[in-house]
Amino acid sequence: MSGSPTEAERHERARRVVAHMLAHDPFSQWLGVEVLHVAPGAVTLRMTVRPEMANGFGRTHGGVTYSFADSALAFASNGHGRVAVSVDTQIAHTRAVQAGDVLEAVAVEEQLTERLGFYRVQVTSAGAPVALFRGTVYRTTHHHPEGDS
Amino acid sequence: MSGSPTEAERHERARRVVAHMLAHDPFSQWLGVEVLHVAPGAVTLRMTVRPEMANGFGRTHGGVTYSFADSALAFASNGHGRVAVSVDTQIAHTRAVQAGDVLEAVAVEEQLTERLGFYRVQVTSAGAPVALFRGTVYRTTHHHPEGDS
Amino acid sequence: MSGSPTEAERHERARRVVAHMLAHDPFSQWLGVEVLHVAPGAVTLRMTVRPEMANGFGRTHGGVTYSFADSALAFASNGHGRVAVSVDTQIAHTRAVQAGDVLEAVAVEEQLTERLGFYRVQVTSAGAPVALFRGTVYRTTHHHPEGDS
Amino acid sequence: MSGSPTEAERHERARRVVAHMLAHDPFSQWLGVEVLHVAPGAVTLRMTVRPEMANGFGRTHGGVTYSFADSALAFASNGHGRVAVSVDTQIAHTRAVQAGDVLEAVAVEEQLTERLGFYRVQVTSAGAPVALFRGTVYRTTHHHPEGDS
Repeated sequence: MSGSPTEAERHERARRVVAHMLAHDPFSQWLGVEVLHVAPGAVTLRMTVRPEMANGFGRTHGGVTYSFADSALAFASNGHGRVAVSVDTQIAHTRAVQAGDVLEAVAVEEQLTERLGFYRVQVTSAGAPVALFRGTVYRTTHHHPEGDS
Repeated sequence: MSGSPTEAERHERARRVVAHMLAHDPFSQWLGVEVLHVAPGAVTLRMTVRPEMANGFGRTHGGVTYSFADSALAFASNGHGRVAVSVDTQIAHTRAVQAGDVLEAVAVEEQLTERLGFYRVQVTSAGAPVALFRGTVYRTTHHHPEGDS
Repeated sequence: MSGSPTEAERHERARRVVAHMLAHDPFSQWLGVEVLHVAPGAVTLRMTVRPEMANGFGRTHGGVTYSFADSALAFASNGHGRVAVSVDTQIAHTRAVQAGDVLEAVAVEEQLTERLGFYRVQVTSAGAPVALFRGTVYRTTHHHPEGDS
Repeated sequence: MSGSPTEAERHERARRVVAHMLAHDPFSQWLGVEVLHVAPGAVTLRMTVRPEMANGFGRTHGGVTYSFADSALAFASNGHGRVAVSVDTQIAHTRAVQAGDVLEAVAVEEQLTERLGFYRVQVTSAGAPVALFRGTVYRTTHHHPEGDS
């Protein structure tokens, strides 16, 4: 590919990278993550909570919601084509989740610099927020081979 | 139990609460969490990483390490006998983890007020830190029935 | 005031509480904070950075930007009329700030429960983000007397 | 300087860098920051809270405590001789501070990699913790000229 990629090429690259990552990500598969939407720096994911994901209070374990948001962070930030790794993440669990709930994670890019990317992920259940997640990634100089057409 | 519990009674209560929580926590069981040490406000846990816990880079998914630390937070903070729920948590993944690694999580209480508890969890693999976790919990007025002798 | 306050009364209460807080807040005054907009759970503030606010690199000290965002958190969360205190806050400094920059902080409420409030504050300079802030507050049962008409 | 610096040289470099940073940092001077101890990756600072540092509740503004901890982060992380900039910081204000309080900030390095540094800062007043701070810095490839002997 010569020159700067077009907008359509950037979207296509993001889709290829995310599809490849999910296909090789056994834990996101165990969670049952589905990709609803992909754009450079942004994804929307869905999953359905199962009884085996509960904690000692009969609610969904906070780690499950975090993992779902963290996959959204990885997919959103790597869709630019460069390998990006999580540096710092933070999550507030604002409402209890239960088995059977269908969760949606919307990741958006708040800012992108040469070395760092800043993302926000909101996790909702039936439209109501259940977790607020923020993540910062370090952008390495390695490229995803899947990103090349 | 009348009067303030003795130190030995407080330890015994913490052990009963944590044992009950883990016995009813399917996701911590899926992770393979073992309890190595319990004290009021503190726990040490161990787990062994399995291949199905990997992410799209062939490393352990950040959500697995978070979940492990989050279980340590829940066990440490609930061991006082009052139901405590996570408010805000933060994690930095400082070194890659791989299948076969044996992780240890040490949770310590940084501060405890009437309404809030502040904890730090360090996750190590073979003695080297792999994740730095901080968590704040809200202490409800409900008591764990298991905490009563 | 009997019954639930109307929307107009809630806005008026927020304005009274914020005006009273700022009038009694010497550090926000030292920063030069001006209130541009107030609504229940939301504020927009402005300040101009001065040379004495620099750090050892000749850029604005991160604590100044944090303080500005933290005032926005306090004003947004207390505008409901109940005294709210900060529990956990987090900030990423995404771009350097310099003396002479005019900063704007926009605080929005992400979620509100009986006991906790979750806020996001974006700080910009000339429209470009310079800091991303998140804050959680604990809502006490005390009311601001200024909130009563 | 040829070869790896000795332990004594590393301490001396840290002291030179911190002394130079504080001497050029007007906001830390406004706070009244004093350096009690410096080592590579670690510092202990002291300051006395003044009435003009209060917020709208008559307590010390959370931004003052954050600023104090953030200076400790900057001094601890830059003492290695490479310019380090803050990426993500987080603070929990666990106890109210008042004018006249003498604060101490102890910054320790939790982990150091080629590109990132992870620090914890505890702020105390008369020995009791008032704030728990965590910070991650990005280590640039620029060196502090003051670090060279």
